[in-house]
Amino acid sequence: MAVGSFSIDFKPVPGVRLGSVSCGIKPGGESDLVLFEFAQASTSAGIFTRNHFAAAPVIVARQHLAASASRYFLINSGNANAATGEPGIADALSSCQAVCRHTGASLSEVLPFSTGVIGERLPVEHIIAALPTVLPLLDEANWLDAAKGIMTTDTKPKIGSRQFLLGADQVTITGIAKGAGMIQPNMATLLVYLATDAVAGRADLQTALEQSADKSFNRITIDSDTSTNDACMLVATGVSGRSIAPEPQLATFTTELTSLMIELAQGIVRDAEGATKFVEVAVRKGRNEADCLAVARSIANSPLLKTACYGNDANWGRIIMAIGKAEADLDCSKIDIYLDTVRLVKDGARDPEYTETLGASIMAQDEIRIRVDLNQGEAKETLWTSDLSHAYVSINAAYRT
Amino acid sequence: MAVGSFSIDFKPVPGVRLGSVSCGIKPGGESDLVLFEFAQASTSAGIFTRNHFAAAPVIVARQHLAASASRYFLINSGNANAATGEPGIADALSSCQAVCRHTGASLSEVLPFSTGVIGERLPVEHIIAALPTVLPLLDEANWLDAAKGIMTTDTKPKIGSRQFLLGADQVTITGIAKGAGMIQPNMATLLVYLATDAVAGRADLQTALEQSADKSFNRITIDSDTSTNDACMLVATGVSGRSIAPEPQLATFTTELTSLMIELAQGIVRDAEGATKFVEVAVRKGRNEADCLAVARSIANSPLLKTACYGNDANWGRIIMAIGKAEADLDCSKIDIYLDTVRLVKDGARDPEYTETLGASIMAQDEIRIRVDLNQGEAKETLWTSDLSHAYVSINAAYRT
Repeated sequence: MAVGSFSIDFKPVPGVRLGSVSCGIKPGGESDLVLFEFAQASTSAGIFTRNHFAAAPVIVARQHLAASASRYFLINSGNANAATGEPGIADALSSCQAVCRHTGASLSEVLPFSTGVIGERLPVEHIIAALPTVLPLLDEANWLDAAKGIMTTDTKPKIGSRQFLLGADQVTITGIAKGAGMIQPNMATLLVYLATDAVAGRADLQTALEQSADKSFNRITIDSDTSTNDACMLVATGVSGRSIAPEPQLATFTTELTSLMIELAQGIVRDAEGATKFVEVAVRKGRNEADCLAVARSIANSPLLKTACYGNDANWGRIIMAIGKAEADLDCSKIDIYLDTVRLVKDGARDPEYTETLGASIMAQDEIRIRVDLNQGEAKETLWTSDLSHAYVSINAAYRT
Repeated sequence: MAVGSFSIDFKPVPGVRLGSVSCGIKPGGESDLVLFEFAQASTSAGIFTRNHFAAAPVIVARQHLAASASRYFLINSGNANAATGEPGIADALSSCQAVCRHTGASLSEVLPFSTGVIGERLPVEHIIAALPTVLPLLDEANWLDAAKGIMTTDTKPKIGSRQFLLGADQVTITGIAKGAGMIQPNMATLLVYLATDAVAGRADLQTALEQSADKSFNRITIDSDTSTNDACMLVATGVSGRSIAPEPQLATFTTELTSLMIELAQGIVRDAEGATKFVEVAVRKGRNEADCLAVARSIANSPLLKTACYGNDANWGRIIMAIGKAEADLDCSKIDIYLDTVRLVKDGARDPEYTETLGASIMAQDEIRIRVDLNQGEAKETLWTSDLSHAYVSINAAYRT
């Protein structure tokens, strides 16, 4: 049920080798284990879920990232290793230690990531047993296989690249992402891995990643539920010899990174569980960004608005309701609302020129753009979301069965 | 698809007469206009939606309640008269004025209420034309007809009574409520009307109503969406001659009122759009009530938890996720989680004695009780909600068609 087209084009990143195999966690024998290897002297940055119940691999990865630069990411799908307590931490560490034994890396150079069912012990013996198989497969060309290997309820791999000039030299950023439900990231989304061959200081890399996440993964929602396992990682191998600092290179790099992350984040929404619609919610002319974001989230997370999108119903009263319940300082008599270019509401009440026929023709589209002009200032925010369909209910009523 | 049984027992309230008719707003000819008449010298209290886009009748009713005691409530279903701007206010006022012409009441003694589709002009001529029909029908016995007349997507009327001694004399409280979707009240739920024959000062009545609402209608959620038209009204006719003040009568009255309002609020959840389950979420032993409420709301509003309830899936990882995303100060390593009396989670991780069979047997029930012990203090909060079913999506994808 994915909405729109998904590109599978990507460019390898010099200094990054990847491999993926099936280690037996997913019952159907699909690829479920991915290993990233980064060149010596790579720098790394990361952002993680703010869920209080951060999963064991998130706790370990956060510690390892703080302690040293990263050489390996070990990622499994099919099991989240979340709400597993101290045994879960031990499982995450023992899988990292197995990578160390094979590669000579130190423990903090290996970061673990997991995604899948919450609350079950990680079958760490499957992961350890598969390492001798995956290590010989490591190759710069394997990004698409890796994008498939981290999928759970995703139906499409999410992958993309940017190539651009930093000064006189071309550099590359490539990334993959996964996630289809339990998506309202509050730092990052389920799993995102980005790498560049640029040279980057750690602080610059972290800042670029955080700024870009706030315009991409932190601006999507599928079901308002925030995962225990969110992680978004960016590694700079430095192989190109070109630095992202100082300005104007840093701005160029961040702009390209943001563009790629928006593409990947929108890919997650387009492939949301049960999605039949891709919905953009743009709130403009607010007093401040917080007000705009509160209104946009209230609309994008409203089950009633989402079911109306699914039903092709231009039920704009539900947009009104959702704006009105937002925790924001609003003057409702100033608000204008548009579906694409059709104005539904002018100064807080129905536009006399609006007709149901106009609204219905837009709601029937696969992609719907809702725009709210608060007309109280100059701030703006944009979110992307999906509809709420029968298929979302079916997928999530039977996820574990 | 209502869950559990619905009583239609009630006791008339001396000093309250009601009538209902079909005035032609609902296309199927069902009852859609209700008129309440209260005895001279009645006192009244009310609480209203905090949605910024408060509907025209809410704006008018709030003003009229502030200006004088209430003699008449004029309620229509099928049209919310919301997001209708100044013309909507004029429509609400002209329907009140028509009641004044027939009864001699002053304008502020008549309060208008509307529920139904948002954003369409109220067909006020239908209402005015029906008044000569409904006025002769006014009778103390008509509470059940009124409960039916205010229904929209409700499948069952919600009605109840309490009779108890205040000092030496018996008094009565009777109430009706409606609502099945767009339910996360933030003062009251869609429409609730309560009356008593006790004598009550206005301030006491308002306090009793607010305290009781915070334990009943402000503790339910169906879809996290807050209506533009919420109103909860309580009128004391004084016909019994018994006063609710001072203590201990005031405590007795408030306890009985709260009990009735919980019954009506739970009735709304049991009759929620598409509901196949009635779910209680109790969060206990928190540092303070705000933390408990944040955790309870996060669980009760999680689409993933609600679909798991629909699917009979004891997917407790979703309870963990929902607790973890709550904006509260939590020590996850102390948290215990129960389904009814079965402990799923002990000290933040799966209870070793828990089995899927135990969990599945509880999730298969019509009524599910989720209990979270935060083990950080003595505060507690309880919410009631429903599951998220295919039928919810069907009802709301096609509400206007």
